[in-house]
Amino acid sequence: MSDNQPETEEATGVEETGIYDADGVISSDFLAHIGAAIADRATLTLKQDVSSLHQSEIGDLLEALLPEQRRALVELMGDDFDFTALTEVDEAIRLDIVESLPNAQIAQAVQQLDSDDAVYILEDLETEDQDEILAQLPFTERIRLRRSLGYPEETAGRRMQTEFVAVPPFWTVGQTIDYMRDDQNLPENFSQVFVIDPGFRLVGAVDLDRILRSKRNVRIEDVMRETRHAIPATMDQEEAAQIFEQYDLLSAAVVDENERLVGVLTIDDVVDVIQQEAEEDLLRMGGVGDEELSDSVMTAARSRVPWLLVNLITAFLAASVIGLFDATIQQIVALAVLMPIVAGMGGNAGSQTMTVTVRALATRDLDIYNAGRIIRREMGVGLLNGAIFATLIGLVAALWFRDPDIGGIIATAMVINMFVAALGGILIPLLLDKVGADPAVASSVFVTAVTDVVGFFAFLGLATWWFGFL
Amino acid sequence: MSDNQPETEEATGVEETGIYDADGVISSDFLAHIGAAIADRATLTLKQDVSSLHQSEIGDLLEALLPEQRRALVELMGDDFDFTALTEVDEAIRLDIVESLPNAQIAQAVQQLDSDDAVYILEDLETEDQDEILAQLPFTERIRLRRSLGYPEETAGRRMQTEFVAVPPFWTVGQTIDYMRDDQNLPENFSQVFVIDPGFRLVGAVDLDRILRSKRNVRIEDVMRETRHAIPATMDQEEAAQIFEQYDLLSAAVVDENERLVGVLTIDDVVDVIQQEAEEDLLRMGGVGDEELSDSVMTAARSRVPWLLVNLITAFLAASVIGLFDATIQQIVALAVLMPIVAGMGGNAGSQTMTVTVRALATRDLDIYNAGRIIRREMGVGLLNGAIFATLIGLVAALWFRDPDIGGIIATAMVINMFVAALGGILIPLLLDKVGADPAVASSVFVTAVTDVVGFFAFLGLATWWFGFL
Repeated sequence: MSDNQPETEEATGVEETGIYDADGVISSDFLAHIGAAIADRATLTLKQDVSSLHQSEIGDLLEALLPEQRRALVELMGDDFDFTALTEVDEAIRLDIVESLPNAQIAQAVQQLDSDDAVYILEDLETEDQDEILAQLPFTERIRLRRSLGYPEETAGRRMQTEFVAVPPFWTVGQTIDYMRDDQNLPENFSQVFVIDPGFRLVGAVDLDRILRSKRNVRIEDVMRETRHAIPATMDQEEAAQIFEQYDLLSAAVVDENERLVGVLTIDDVVDVIQQEAEEDLLRMGGVGDEELSDSVMTAARSRVPWLLVNLITAFLAASVIGLFDATIQQIVALAVLMPIVAGMGGNAGSQTMTVTVRALATRDLDIYNAGRIIRREMGVGLLNGAIFATLIGLVAALWFRDPDIGGIIATAMVINMFVAALGGILIPLLLDKVGADPAVASSVFVTAVTDVVGFFAFLGLATWWFGFL
Repeated sequence: MSDNQPETEEATGVEETGIYDADGVISSDFLAHIGAAIADRATLTLKQDVSSLHQSEIGDLLEALLPEQRRALVELMGDDFDFTALTEVDEAIRLDIVESLPNAQIAQAVQQLDSDDAVYILEDLETEDQDEILAQLPFTERIRLRRSLGYPEETAGRRMQTEFVAVPPFWTVGQTIDYMRDDQNLPENFSQVFVIDPGFRLVGAVDLDRILRSKRNVRIEDVMRETRHAIPATMDQEEAAQIFEQYDLLSAAVVDENERLVGVLTIDDVVDVIQQEAEEDLLRMGGVGDEELSDSVMTAARSRVPWLLVNLITAFLAASVIGLFDATIQQIVALAVLMPIVAGMGGNAGSQTMTVTVRALATRDLDIYNAGRIIRREMGVGLLNGAIFATLIGLVAALWFRDPDIGGIIATAMVINMFVAALGGILIPLLLDKVGADPAVASSVFVTAVTDVVGFFAFLGLATWWFGFL
């Protein structure tokens, strides 16, 4: 650190970069400043103020700008625009920007990127544009990107970086360090050195800290670990993420079908995958498909129709159960007033159990070793909370309609429905998981169907029988 | 790699360690084998077969065993038991095992651990036990652990590792490498070297790959980056995780209130935090508190009561709305049959919008720059899907009860409720977020309350007015 830098610069938090406000949102001052610079076509200001930002900060800035401002910003900055920022924005925004640029400029920019970022940007483009861009790249780079793009979406091969450091096992630590000092084509960041045989097949890996604490004359094969967690390029990214999580990996070798080293998967990509999978689970449980915030009304509406349709069917099923007892309801209207309480409380209790179950299945915390205990526990919870709320609701209903019979009937129906809800809440996701369906997607519909049907049937059926309408 | 190792061992996937079955669950064969060894007190077998496992594998094994088997396993393995495995199990299981051990043995084991793992195990113990264990540790270790434990739960200070490598800025790369070769007390794994001034204040950091590609005579201050993302020890772990995510960090310096370096936070801890926060959001949206799978019936039942209670109140609110129209229902029982459809479909549409909103708020994708657009979009989706499903339901209802009036009334009520559901689904979480409440926790109750009340009121109210019962 040179002497003329102020001491207070030493350990500044993220807020102090000044582009975010207290809520962590791009500050309106900064946005106005950049907006004005774009309007004035003040290229120099933009280059100065935007180039110094981190790629994710540029991404946030792009998302806050208007579409035409975004395109103008990228155009004005020219070669100074950091294309990695495009990996940090919504897919729709990325496509909009990339499609506004000439393919030659994209080809130029892509060469500066790590291969995983390049693939991220190229994969959404039309095959035609992809081909045109790839054709303008140097041979080795073209081959590498083609190989990554050749693997299916959401696989390790798609997410891997093809730049890595690999050395033969008979090299010494000193040789390896000298090699790294001399080679100008090292990846931008790396945390381990791979060890390969003459056929490029993976032998092992050495973490950098291991190299640094070893003497120069030690042979690489004596400090390397055998790679127990090599990731096949065709492995699903979610499965790869689970391996990272389980074994606390920072990076892992990706190998092709002949166990040749083809790339490296790094933890930052895996963090994105973990976030994405958690998001998917949450959205699915809420009855929403793979939606993005930038989707249009039509796209969003369409993605939600299937779930609403399934719910419509179960709603009519529940309605037809009510229809069985229309004569009873006509005699005692109080039943119509109270019946949504029985169904609703059951639905809530069921969705509590279901949420716990779906999450435990996703994290693999629920398995054959504890399923029996958890099922028994949920039955206990259902009976216990069923009894508590049955008493409460029974009392209120009896007082409201001045009829102890109504109180007793709703209390009994509540206990039944809360117990069935607990049972359904755990058995339905377990069953769906067993048959290979995603419990996050479908459980909710079935659980609600069960608690509605059982809730209405138990309550109205009991009332019909008790008051002698049968 | 020595010559007598078989070639096929080079790149084995995780499945091939043989302790998991195809579903990723501990295989019953392996479990039976370990169970038998525990029963026979076959210490040697256990030491051989368990010590070779990764800490997370031992964790999975412990969770699959019965409580008395777990305690016996730890006891039989003695000093060979890897205590880091305890950081991989449920809190209840960890406590059960730790409390079964004498404090002297824990003190012994804790000394072998990285400080973050040690804190993880110690933090759940009673203060008395903590003190007794800490008293048996060497001075510096005691001081370090006490400092970590002194920071509030869920802060960076609690999760940090106090072992790190720090050098002065005027050292050369060569000096730094030599220091690492000689020092026996280096942390087990590290990916960067910190740079500090004589007052132990943080000046910057150098990634290991940077050190390795620099010449020996280069000074550290010339290759270091200034640390822009130093994490205050008191920062909430979730906020720290967001910084890691945004800036793709592998590790970050943790500093005290005087900007002195006190520890390092690493990405593997951050991945756990991200998982935990995603889990919390999911559970909260499902109406479940901070529950663990190992909780008892009583604990689980209690954690779910508040949500059920709030729902009970809104259910009675909805029931009282129905009560307003009991005379109408008595005349036309079809209304009682159909009314849950209006409320239910509205509830589903509302929870779709709410799920998208809550998630976008959590990932900070929804902010003042796009809120207006998203609100308009959701209103559009509500109207569009409202119109589609109103038509469908109206037709079915009209045919079912052979009454076109009923069809028209339910269709109108549906459009109203789906539109209100969309509006409530986005405005309620936005409002809760604005006032500082957690939208994941409370949104669902309010949204359901709104869609129930509006659904019943619109449907029954319209019918009452149309059929002239007013």
